[in-house]
Amino acid sequence: MDERVREHAAVLVDWSARVEAGDDVVVSVAEDAHELGVAVAEALGERGANVTTLYGSAEVSRAYLKGAEAGSEGGDGDGDDGDDGDGDGAPSFDDDPAVERALFEAADAYLRIGGGRNTTASADVASETRQAYAKARQGVREARMDTDWVSTVHPTRSLAQQAGMAYEEYREFVYDAVLHDWEALADEMAAMKDALDRGDEVRIVTERDDAPDTDISMSIAGRTAVNSAASVAYDSHNLPSGEVFTAPYDTEGEAFFDVPMTIDATRVRDVHLVFEDGEVVDFSAGAGEGALASVLDTDAGARRLGELGIGMNRGIDRFTDSILFDEKMGDTVHLAVGRAYDACLPEGESGNDSAVHVDMISDVSEDSRLEIDGEVVQRNGTFRWEDGFEG
Amino acid sequence: MDERVREHAAVLVDWSARVEAGDDVVVSVAEDAHELGVAVAEALGERGANVTTLYGSAEVSRAYLKGAEAGSEGGDGDGDDGDDGDGDGAPSFDDDPAVERALFEAADAYLRIGGGRNTTASADVASETRQAYAKARQGVREARMDTDWVSTVHPTRSLAQQAGMAYEEYREFVYDAVLHDWEALADEMAAMKDALDRGDEVRIVTERDDAPDTDISMSIAGRTAVNSAASVAYDSHNLPSGEVFTAPYDTEGEAFFDVPMTIDATRVRDVHLVFEDGEVVDFSAGAGEGALASVLDTDAGARRLGELGIGMNRGIDRFTDSILFDEKMGDTVHLAVGRAYDACLPEGESGNDSAVHVDMISDVSEDSRLEIDGEVVQRNGTFRWEDGFEG
Repeated sequence: MDERVREHAAVLVDWSARVEAGDDVVVSVAEDAHELGVAVAEALGERGANVTTLYGSAEVSRAYLKGAEAGSEGGDGDGDDGDDGDGDGAPSFDDDPAVERALFEAADAYLRIGGGRNTTASADVASETRQAYAKARQGVREARMDTDWVSTVHPTRSLAQQAGMAYEEYREFVYDAVLHDWEALADEMAAMKDALDRGDEVRIVTERDDAPDTDISMSIAGRTAVNSAASVAYDSHNLPSGEVFTAPYDTEGEAFFDVPMTIDATRVRDVHLVFEDGEVVDFSAGAGEGALASVLDTDAGARRLGELGIGMNRGIDRFTDSILFDEKMGDTVHLAVGRAYDACLPEGESGNDSAVHVDMISDVSEDSRLEIDGEVVQRNGTFRWEDGFEG
Repeated sequence: MDERVREHAAVLVDWSARVEAGDDVVVSVAEDAHELGVAVAEALGERGANVTTLYGSAEVSRAYLKGAEAGSEGGDGDGDDGDDGDGDGAPSFDDDPAVERALFEAADAYLRIGGGRNTTASADVASETRQAYAKARQGVREARMDTDWVSTVHPTRSLAQQAGMAYEEYREFVYDAVLHDWEALADEMAAMKDALDRGDEVRIVTERDDAPDTDISMSIAGRTAVNSAASVAYDSHNLPSGEVFTAPYDTEGEAFFDVPMTIDATRVRDVHLVFEDGEVVDFSAGAGEGALASVLDTDAGARRLGELGIGMNRGIDRFTDSILFDEKMGDTVHLAVGRAYDACLPEGESGNDSAVHVDMISDVSEDSRLEIDGEVVQRNGTFRWEDGFEG
């Protein structure tokens, strides 16, 4: 076994999930993530934790959902035959099945290791079926989110393909992103969090010859930034992570997002948004404008920002069409329309609410600056506490 | 997907486990059993059952146990360091971890699909470690046994290798054993069960030129035979099955077992046992006599019979060094030293008790007869209700 697989497991178990002796840990292993699953089991045994291993196979899930679709076909729509009877033709699913609920309710930590054989393994499942399944599992999801959960990926050929990279090259990429001195990065990100927590207004300006300008301002007064340092100890549930994010409001101006992304299996690029009084009043996209339109039309909250995030993981040096990595990349900022995270809001206050949360990313490595209350904090990707910063 | 994989899944879900809509089903998928796992998930979706999928990886289990061994090393033996402190050096494990207990307590059915990549994947785990792990999971095991559980295997290259067969050849072998008209076989086995239930004494005689004679008698008065028809509806938890078994006592005589077997990773063949007053008083083996001796020395019950089984699955036509298949083969009978099954005993009565249960198999296809109360029921492998029977 590549020693980096064991190092990845150690970061996941110790830094990210903070597993201790006696903890009950549920590990989900995707089809091609066997090697990391083995290394994680070894680490958990060594720490004196208990482990239950799930098979996180997209093909097994897809087969179950296709089976449910087949089982509900040809019925009379009254619900007796597996059709949920609401007229959309989707199968019905039992609410929060006992086994899954009991499993997560009893768990201290949940480690999800992604890495299948085909990122589009479920492409032929109807979206109504997926939605019906997800809707019936609200309680299971809540029980899962109540654990110390962490999501990571084992580098697989399928993910390399999605990233447009060779397998060996992709492995280097993943381990560069994951195998950090996280303590040091968390300290650096704490400086960014402090600046955001003290500030009232953020302005992002980018003036490049080859793209529309960005000049956007938003209020962050009263909001709390999250230092997302890839550890449950930092309210952070992704490995890798490496971003600081908050929940902005009262957005004004326009922004251009040059990093390509995938929304509902549609390639979307070169998104341009115009905000007035906190809302998107105009938008365009170089590709996939229809997918963008349906996101913005979901509900009222889908036209307001839910997140401002600042990527600070310099181990990530390229875009791979995976939000787990892309939004954490150094030299980027991202804005998300839709739902805000509770962790950023004052106790008892509810932020922007929406059924969606869609991140859009801008490269800020050139001709760009981020200001907090008029003071430049990042210019051309370099933070003010870094060497080479030009204020 | 080979259509036989889907047929195997249907037999497992419908005939064996009797899954119904709304059932909570836990499925364990071994490393190389992905295809059958997919087919089972599809069938469960179609039946309207709920599914939770475990990763039954021998390499993950081995890694966990090796990790626990490493974690308990170098301690002072007082138990604080993961050593269980009883002096055998084995790591300690928490009793019945909450997640696993909750999982099986909430489950209606448990389908275990074997089929790894290496049948000796855990060869380097100390037997003390395995025993400590198993001992700490008594409650989990009981919860699992309280479900409608069924164990089967997906044909893999590793199992083909263990059987000494080509992969394609082994697939044919497995599907011949599994894809039966089980209803018809269950009816035929009912005739055998009736004969055993009515009888008081069984005698097995084999007189072959090339092997020591078998002439052994045992009492079965008051005992109930199990028609093991590969379905929970028949108290049968293996797919394939196809044997009728009971719990004999007061064994007299001698028996020769010509089918090779593996005891604790040791190859054992040509076992000869001599019984007096129900106990083994003399024994020998053509190979692996030491392994046989340690079985017989385990405890007092290890020298008495716990089971007489009659193989009736004619889809199984060769020995493959797997007890799941070997003991079900038509033209064979098997005797087990050690623990008797409760299902064969009168309510409240306890049968032969032992920590072991080791099956030994005889080919009865030639020069052989099985009598119940002096009446020949099977001669040279043919039962009295079959064509060609010579009484």
